[in-house]
Amino acid sequence: MLGSTHGTFTTDLRARVVACGEQPGTAVHGVAAAEGDQDVSGRPLYVPVPDLDRFFRPESVAVVGASDAEGRPNTGITRQLIAWAERVGARLHPVHPTRASVFGVDCVPSVADLADPVDLAVLLVADPLPVVEELAEAKVKFAVAFASGFAETGDAGARAQDRLSAAVRRSGLRLLGPNTNLNAFEEFRDDLDGPAIALITQSGHQGRPVFTLQELGVRLSHWAPTGNEADLETADFISYFAERPEVGAIACYVEGLKDGRSFLLAADRAARRGVPVVTVKVGRTEAGARMAASHTGKLTGADQVVDAAMRQFGVIRVDGLDELQDTAALLARARPPAAEGVVVYSISGGTGAHFSDLATAAGLTLPTLSQDRQDELHQWIPGYLSVANPVDNGGHPVGDWRGRKIIDAILADPSVGVLVCPITGPFPPMSDKLAQDLVDAAETTDKLICVVWGSPVGTEDAYRRTLLGSSRVATFRTFGNCITAVKAYLDHSRFTTGYRSPFDEAPRTPSPSFRKAQALLRPGHRLSEHAAKQLLRAYGIRVPREQLVTSAAAAVRAAGLVGYPVVMKASGAQLAHKTELGLVKIGLTSASQIRDAYRELTDIARYEGVDLDGILVCQMVERGVEMVVGVTQDALFGPTVTVGLGGVLVEVLADTAVRVPPFGEQQARAMLAELRGRALLDGVRGAPPADVDALVEVVLRVQRMALELGGDLAELDINPLVVLERGQGAVALDALAVCR
Amino acid sequence: MLGSTHGTFTTDLRARVVACGEQPGTAVHGVAAAEGDQDVSGRPLYVPVPDLDRFFRPESVAVVGASDAEGRPNTGITRQLIAWAERVGARLHPVHPTRASVFGVDCVPSVADLADPVDLAVLLVADPLPVVEELAEAKVKFAVAFASGFAETGDAGARAQDRLSAAVRRSGLRLLGPNTNLNAFEEFRDDLDGPAIALITQSGHQGRPVFTLQELGVRLSHWAPTGNEADLETADFISYFAERPEVGAIACYVEGLKDGRSFLLAADRAARRGVPVVTVKVGRTEAGARMAASHTGKLTGADQVVDAAMRQFGVIRVDGLDELQDTAALLARARPPAAEGVVVYSISGGTGAHFSDLATAAGLTLPTLSQDRQDELHQWIPGYLSVANPVDNGGHPVGDWRGRKIIDAILADPSVGVLVCPITGPFPPMSDKLAQDLVDAAETTDKLICVVWGSPVGTEDAYRRTLLGSSRVATFRTFGNCITAVKAYLDHSRFTTGYRSPFDEAPRTPSPSFRKAQALLRPGHRLSEHAAKQLLRAYGIRVPREQLVTSAAAAVRAAGLVGYPVVMKASGAQLAHKTELGLVKIGLTSASQIRDAYRELTDIARYEGVDLDGILVCQMVERGVEMVVGVTQDALFGPTVTVGLGGVLVEVLADTAVRVPPFGEQQARAMLAELRGRALLDGVRGAPPADVDALVEVVLRVQRMALELGGDLAELDINPLVVLERGQGAVALDALAVCR
Repeated sequence: MLGSTHGTFTTDLRARVVACGEQPGTAVHGVAAAEGDQDVSGRPLYVPVPDLDRFFRPESVAVVGASDAEGRPNTGITRQLIAWAERVGARLHPVHPTRASVFGVDCVPSVADLADPVDLAVLLVADPLPVVEELAEAKVKFAVAFASGFAETGDAGARAQDRLSAAVRRSGLRLLGPNTNLNAFEEFRDDLDGPAIALITQSGHQGRPVFTLQELGVRLSHWAPTGNEADLETADFISYFAERPEVGAIACYVEGLKDGRSFLLAADRAARRGVPVVTVKVGRTEAGARMAASHTGKLTGADQVVDAAMRQFGVIRVDGLDELQDTAALLARARPPAAEGVVVYSISGGTGAHFSDLATAAGLTLPTLSQDRQDELHQWIPGYLSVANPVDNGGHPVGDWRGRKIIDAILADPSVGVLVCPITGPFPPMSDKLAQDLVDAAETTDKLICVVWGSPVGTEDAYRRTLLGSSRVATFRTFGNCITAVKAYLDHSRFTTGYRSPFDEAPRTPSPSFRKAQALLRPGHRLSEHAAKQLLRAYGIRVPREQLVTSAAAAVRAAGLVGYPVVMKASGAQLAHKTELGLVKIGLTSASQIRDAYRELTDIARYEGVDLDGILVCQMVERGVEMVVGVTQDALFGPTVTVGLGGVLVEVLADTAVRVPPFGEQQARAMLAELRGRALLDGVRGAPPADVDALVEVVLRVQRMALELGGDLAELDINPLVVLERGQGAVALDALAVCR
Repeated sequence: MLGSTHGTFTTDLRARVVACGEQPGTAVHGVAAAEGDQDVSGRPLYVPVPDLDRFFRPESVAVVGASDAEGRPNTGITRQLIAWAERVGARLHPVHPTRASVFGVDCVPSVADLADPVDLAVLLVADPLPVVEELAEAKVKFAVAFASGFAETGDAGARAQDRLSAAVRRSGLRLLGPNTNLNAFEEFRDDLDGPAIALITQSGHQGRPVFTLQELGVRLSHWAPTGNEADLETADFISYFAERPEVGAIACYVEGLKDGRSFLLAADRAARRGVPVVTVKVGRTEAGARMAASHTGKLTGADQVVDAAMRQFGVIRVDGLDELQDTAALLARARPPAAEGVVVYSISGGTGAHFSDLATAAGLTLPTLSQDRQDELHQWIPGYLSVANPVDNGGHPVGDWRGRKIIDAILADPSVGVLVCPITGPFPPMSDKLAQDLVDAAETTDKLICVVWGSPVGTEDAYRRTLLGSSRVATFRTFGNCITAVKAYLDHSRFTTGYRSPFDEAPRTPSPSFRKAQALLRPGHRLSEHAAKQLLRAYGIRVPREQLVTSAAAAVRAAGLVGYPVVMKASGAQLAHKTELGLVKIGLTSASQIRDAYRELTDIARYEGVDLDGILVCQMVERGVEMVVGVTQDALFGPTVTVGLGGVLVEVLADTAVRVPPFGEQQARAMLAELRGRALLDGVRGAPPADVDALVEVVLRVQRMALELGGDLAELDINPLVVLERGQGAVALDALAVCR
């Protein structure tokens, strides 16, 4: 009986959707965004790339607040700048209200007094605000403000920073800082080959280890220490670096994002160009605290939003600075992988087994080499050793001509994209030759060769000279960091290959659903269950057939229309946790049961002091997988869409996945794949597979609603959404909506 | 109505348990085990510590198969041994059937020809088996066998190894290997201070990085390369090292355990003595494949068993060799913590925030320093910097006398057990002085000082000389490894402080339940649900009141006795997944419903071709939290006990915890704490808290059953065990038992 009720219901709703011509979940395809374009929520779909060439390579630099007085901090900075200007051939102009010269260089009282047009002004003054207007008049392009005491010190500082930002906006110049330093003008090695890392840090000290990679032979092209980001922000530098031909990867140390959308647009640019962005992101954003207090909101957590946003745009998030170094160095220099297979090659069976165990656990694919390949390897490696992958050479073959043959044979295999050689203990007669063979082989192949130099000492020649001397071999010190980096390399390549920018497909104009939905919103209020369901219906999301009634007699009539058996629920704007209060009655099959239920529900509501707008008489929906789908507002990213397992699970296990709009169907499906309990959707214990397509469609329609209603819909929580068996759809049994 | 039924039921069962005088879950307390003692399963409760003094410091060594012929591998080994003997003052005797001398030392044809009693024979021969008897006659204490080609090569090799093991057992000597090497006789630095690491490895190459720690100033006392462990095994060396005064921590690289119980007894010895054991354990054991194919068995996975066993006995499992090095070095040298609080102290706010973020995420406690302490620190640190923890000194104070004052003030705080100073970027004017102050301060405190030297270069003087020159400061290269090691240090200290050996409390004689249970077993068969429940009942585990009937009339009579409403289930030894087959009927409230159900159940069984032993008429039990409790056999450890969330969750989320008997109540409670869904037991959505005490009692009774029935009970699966609200107990609604 339930089956047939359900069948009617499906046809009914589908018909309505088609009749309205609505397809609110479907994206516009393939319109490349341009400057000024906005999505339906009013957020930009495009940001221009700032031209920072002159910032990084200024020809003329003014130092405002220059000093050569003994013991003053500005004196050291001035000295550094003079040395740097000499090195790069820039003209340096000290500026000071009273001094005639600084370190023997003529000094002027103001930038306005300089005849030479200034590319960059370094502001060493305590309050950069008054200087900014002066710079604007002198048509200075860029400024760097060292002063601290702004947003990092609290509310008063934040207001001072806002004033500075506003002045900079009016001025037309671009400002780095405040609360920054000279890292952008450090001495970069120019003798290193290959694609470089570009570095962006919000704390200069935390960028030092990546900068120091140059001492290990890794090329660094830029360092942007963004400080408080009153104007130029991390996103600006990501966009700029993504367009630079010498940049192979962008490494970031981020404490907080200034603006969610600008970060995503920058990440999108990098993703389109295939430039990897690797980042440490510290802590939780303020967004977490401010998130709406709905179930899914609480469970999601703001850091989960940042994490998801980064993954959506292929940004690689790591935890340690060591991982940042190793992953960025590999991604900067490696060519695109020819295959996804990783072969582990070692001089010890134990080492190979251990590395392979960890690599497999991390999700890397270690293909078994073909029998032909194994036979070939056994020409040089004793037959009792396994060469299937890991390849154990037993040690001795690396000491002579066989060593190189083995490496070349492995690299020649079409299943192999990466060869990893972990050398846990250096044994010079073997490991020196092995290191040299690997370096030599790397010159002749496009495939990635990684070496783990496991000695904790790290002063050995094979490591310092041979391995670090090659920009073609990626050298690590730990199994863990090698695996993290190789995984990031293969994942990023797969990501960019299949990448389609969601900004090109984002909706720009409201769907026909929008007006209907708008009429249902009640600013500042929570909607009743019935009204919330009307909202869903407006976006073509199925809800049970139901009627809101205010008398027992009407309830009986409604049940006749809806069809027995029915569910009866108290309905009211302030009602949550109806089940716990006993305000839901299921499986009612007769008029007398309905009258009894009506009396009981209104009695309980009276007893509990709950205002009702009536009693809902709803169609019973057959069993399915209970999910939750919701919208919450994130302070950084705006509306976010969450999907998770429903019922008590959502509270206990917080098994949810979140995405930041705009996102397409592929990401909606990826959300489901992230759920630990996703197997429930495939059908367990003989249950049929659930209608995942319908669930994906609901997620996309909810996204559309979140984008169109924007901040007006503070919170939406469909709980449960019952996903029926494949082909049968999904039905929102209950919903909560809060308007702003 | 259910409530009252349930009430009767509880009283009934409790009364039965008391009447029998059974308390099968309760352990014998405080009987220290001695040699020869066994638990009720026949497993040893005690192993003696092998006396390996003469193995590691032999006075007289025979080299069987010694050579000085150019190009032979044995020649290199002989040369190494001669050098080693000279260094340690041991007498070395080459043994070779034909040579008169080797490297100028007189050679004899057989060990029997030596007048000097031999402590250790190094066997360089391809087949050590014939030599073993010869050695026994000569009363040689120890032998090391280099030959490979044994268990590591497959079945034939394993048989050869078994023969070797048997010969060694008969001989009375103790053998290291085969398939091992000279690592035990490497050159150890004797100029290093403080407690040492003792190293045990099953692959010599994999121990090299830990051995090399000596070059970084970390003392190493022993290295046992155990190879194939035909006789001496990892456990023997753990026991021996745990008793050595110079050993501060034991580091292990393990590929497979020879015997579960001997490993646990050795780990127990180390835990009693407070000696940390840190281990890398590669891969999954063969046990995984052999585990019984029950639900809980499949989900548990053998590696989960190894993991749990290690945690039960305080063994610290790490994944990377770098973590093994860093964790073992810290644990070897650190004194017991005075407090659990960790303070992060840095010269950069960014560094402090980043480290604190990761440390907190890993579960370390970072106490906020008292206002008094903060005021004290602000004497030396500018007021605008936060010193609450992390303590940010802004850099400059470390350059003068204030640096040491700050460190001492932090260390003086009673909430502080560990001070961590991450130095991400070396800046010699600050970091050199900071490193020296930390090293000096460490000499005056028992508290742990950790430094992270974040430069990827690692050749800086402050690192190489100052920090590595101190055995009192624990120096790391990455945030991650520092956090892993500090967490292990605090966890291990907490573990050993509260440690009570489960072997002292393990049951040694069968409980009165045992005979009843034994009578129910049917070797080689699976029991019917009814019989499996009888087994549980024998161990005082509650099951619903139920009767097995073979006619509709008997079913109606049974329902009258059991009490309406009832559940009816088909019962048969081969029946699993009854619910999917429609072989369960619930909530039957009348004689006519029972007759209908009887007919339907027998019809379905006939249609499905299932043999029934009857129909069970069972009491309905009120709602509670559904759990599973089970027993499976692990190839390494014997019976294991699993607990998990029940219902569909157990399949989808595999949310289970496992323990290896014997274990006490504390571990049974710890199992529940490991479950991701443990909040279900606390009560969610207004549900009352569940009777966790009753659940723990069931786990302990199941353990008792597993120990007493041993291998005869191949598999037990209580699914579901309904845990009622607190004070109301837990009831096994269904059970599956397989006898061997």
